[in-house]
Amino acid sequence: MALKKILIANRGEIALRIIRACHELDIPTVAVYSKADKLSLHVRFSDEAICIGEANPRESYLNVTRIMAAAELTNADAIHPGYGFLAENAAFAELCGDHHLAFIGPTPAVIREMGDKARAREIMKKAGVPVIPGSDGVVKDPEAAEKIAGKLGYPVILKAVAGGGGKGMRIVHEPKNIQNAFNTARNEAENSFSNGDLYIERFIRKPRHIEIQILGDMHGNVYALGERECSIQRRHQKLIEESPSTAVDPELRHRMQDTAVRAAKAVNYTGAGTIEFLLDDKKNFYFMEMNTRIQVEHAITEMVMGMDLVKKQIQIADGYILPERLKDYKIRGHALECRVNAEDPANGFKPSPGTIEALHIPGGSGVRVDTHLYSGYTIPVNYDSLLAKIIVQGSSRESAIHRMVRVLEETVIEGIKTTIPFHRQVLSHPDFVNGTFDTDFLEHFHFNPNKV
Amino acid sequence: MALKKILIANRGEIALRIIRACHELDIPTVAVYSKADKLSLHVRFSDEAICIGEANPRESYLNVTRIMAAAELTNADAIHPGYGFLAENAAFAELCGDHHLAFIGPTPAVIREMGDKARAREIMKKAGVPVIPGSDGVVKDPEAAEKIAGKLGYPVILKAVAGGGGKGMRIVHEPKNIQNAFNTARNEAENSFSNGDLYIERFIRKPRHIEIQILGDMHGNVYALGERECSIQRRHQKLIEESPSTAVDPELRHRMQDTAVRAAKAVNYTGAGTIEFLLDDKKNFYFMEMNTRIQVEHAITEMVMGMDLVKKQIQIADGYILPERLKDYKIRGHALECRVNAEDPANGFKPSPGTIEALHIPGGSGVRVDTHLYSGYTIPVNYDSLLAKIIVQGSSRESAIHRMVRVLEETVIEGIKTTIPFHRQVLSHPDFVNGTFDTDFLEHFHFNPNKV
Repeated sequence: MALKKILIANRGEIALRIIRACHELDIPTVAVYSKADKLSLHVRFSDEAICIGEANPRESYLNVTRIMAAAELTNADAIHPGYGFLAENAAFAELCGDHHLAFIGPTPAVIREMGDKARAREIMKKAGVPVIPGSDGVVKDPEAAEKIAGKLGYPVILKAVAGGGGKGMRIVHEPKNIQNAFNTARNEAENSFSNGDLYIERFIRKPRHIEIQILGDMHGNVYALGERECSIQRRHQKLIEESPSTAVDPELRHRMQDTAVRAAKAVNYTGAGTIEFLLDDKKNFYFMEMNTRIQVEHAITEMVMGMDLVKKQIQIADGYILPERLKDYKIRGHALECRVNAEDPANGFKPSPGTIEALHIPGGSGVRVDTHLYSGYTIPVNYDSLLAKIIVQGSSRESAIHRMVRVLEETVIEGIKTTIPFHRQVLSHPDFVNGTFDTDFLEHFHFNPNKV
Repeated sequence: MALKKILIANRGEIALRIIRACHELDIPTVAVYSKADKLSLHVRFSDEAICIGEANPRESYLNVTRIMAAAELTNADAIHPGYGFLAENAAFAELCGDHHLAFIGPTPAVIREMGDKARAREIMKKAGVPVIPGSDGVVKDPEAAEKIAGKLGYPVILKAVAGGGGKGMRIVHEPKNIQNAFNTARNEAENSFSNGDLYIERFIRKPRHIEIQILGDMHGNVYALGERECSIQRRHQKLIEESPSTAVDPELRHRMQDTAVRAAKAVNYTGAGTIEFLLDDKKNFYFMEMNTRIQVEHAITEMVMGMDLVKKQIQIADGYILPERLKDYKIRGHALECRVNAEDPANGFKPSPGTIEALHIPGGSGVRVDTHLYSGYTIPVNYDSLLAKIIVQGSSRESAIHRMVRVLEETVIEGIKTTIPFHRQVLSHPDFVNGTFDTDFLEHFHFNPNKV
């Protein structure tokens, strides 16, 4: 291994996840942390740790200058960005290169191209990857929007070029609403991303969110590692993920994997990445976007594939050649992930920060929990609300669901509200149990706060 | 599932393990506990719990009358004995049958036959299973022992018919010592098992302990599920186990599995069981004994097979037909288990009971920890010293070892002494790393208490 020390520009469970992978590869780590994270596990388990500023992410985890200084001070020779924060910031990746630090991820050019949703769409279209019929680039004004939507057919969806997380996005069902929707979406995009550019696509009704994990090395090899279904989402925030998907048969998997590999090869992709597709009820799938980083839900792929994706990311950055046998990797059983957030499902998912008064992390056969929690830990108000990823594997989907139900029952997190009661109710919903759901599922699902 | 409620006649991590399996099968559980275990997790996580007596196992976990009464009181219709305590007590299994309780394990007759080591040997020999050349039954007196040993050739080993855990066992290298050894072994067996009967075998030098996991259903199907290597043992107590074994190639695995299936079929075996073999350096293997229960180290098989053996035990007791595809089950990667005991390796493995002051159970990709510990838990002095089974899986043996090293580093158990420092030193020993060891390994291994 040429890499001698890796700085982890992140916090929480993903920082811990990366430290573990580094240690298994015998690479020392540098943690960076904000003042609010002084007592975090990623600080405790890292070989070195440097405080880089105040709780506000702009003063710490998003502060490029301070992170580069920490790397300099500690003689780190690589940076792993995790997900969120600087993970998809092309300028940061570029700066790493300028400072002779390996950025563990794809090249800045790829991050930039895939980060521009309109540009990504163009590239994919050219590479023969199916895209949702749409505007082929930025739509200038409300009038142009109306014209294009008329050609595509309603409903349509307006999306921010720089978008993510549902911001700057509007679904429009009738021509009379398009101009208004365009203006509000543009304002929202402007405010959220300092970029008001919008594009239009035909709106796919009742789609499923299916994504393909890919790995590419620096020698031109790209492999697809099965799909993850992430249709259980609330306002574009994934809550439950699974692999494989009940909507994907071997023939469709084959087609989606081939397409994903083509997509990744079109941009000479290196590292771990995810191609997100929308799947309609006729087994047509359309490129939605590419995430040029490790994803929160990567562990379900690790479970069914028996593979460590974060280690692979690091090895790829070190020049490792992916073995050809990845082509024939077989899925074993079925994996599910529940994202346990510090939110109160009985109260509109209001954030519920506080101190963990009692904690029992579940265990047993086929169970993995990735978490930075400990008993006595106080959750800072400054960051996202993810507390733990509870991941299970079963020999079948049915046994995985049974296992997850058992595991959630066994979990004890006292002192704050969590999404666990919500997960338990989703897991027992007939449509979830039957695998017949789409991305609208949670819009029609009613949480019952009185049911245990 | 015909079984409606299962009583778990055990404690500690294995009681918790069984509760988890029951809950995943939607079967309510009854925990029994001694006064010393009032605050144990198996009590907390069971649907019902009944105190059955004093800390002394004879007053609780070995007290058949009280356990039967608890089953009666709670309307349990099955009993899972776990390992240890009553797990291999044929009279107890028989009593369960008399009370119309399903005993989750093989028939009393099989437990009895396999529990009598001389009888087991006879049965296996008849079934064409290779056994170590020996006395074919009980040796009457020191004179007979000398005669038989002379024919077998020295060294020989004297073993108690009712034996286990190294008690009533003597290795004899020269004829002049045989009579003395016979008398002391007989006394020890008498004191330990109320049965002084001994038999003799040729002593295999530098063997490896390789065992085959088998499953048999009540319809005559028996399958072998790969091997576990358990050569890293201290005074016949296993400390580190792994699957697969570095000493077993596919051809040998095939032969050992076939032999194990033949052995199990010879006694119409039902449930989960293990055939323990000694493997010599010429790839000859010999039947040592059969354990008619789930074993401590079963989880490494679960890891590489992607299967839940405890669920299978329960399903078999319910009449489940094992699917034929078990024949073709493939090993995935490599699994290791370290048994973390409350013992001080710097002080002759002296038991180290006490209160857990701080606890961090490790996690991450490919990691499983089966434990009944929690922060604040006080380890009773009355039971065995097993605190946690730390199990990892890696894509190769090398990566599994790296993962285990990382996991042991990450583990925090404060307030008592544990075997973790010992495990860490074993894992970095060249013979262990190279996979070139035998059951004598720990006799020549020196723990350095000053090395972290």
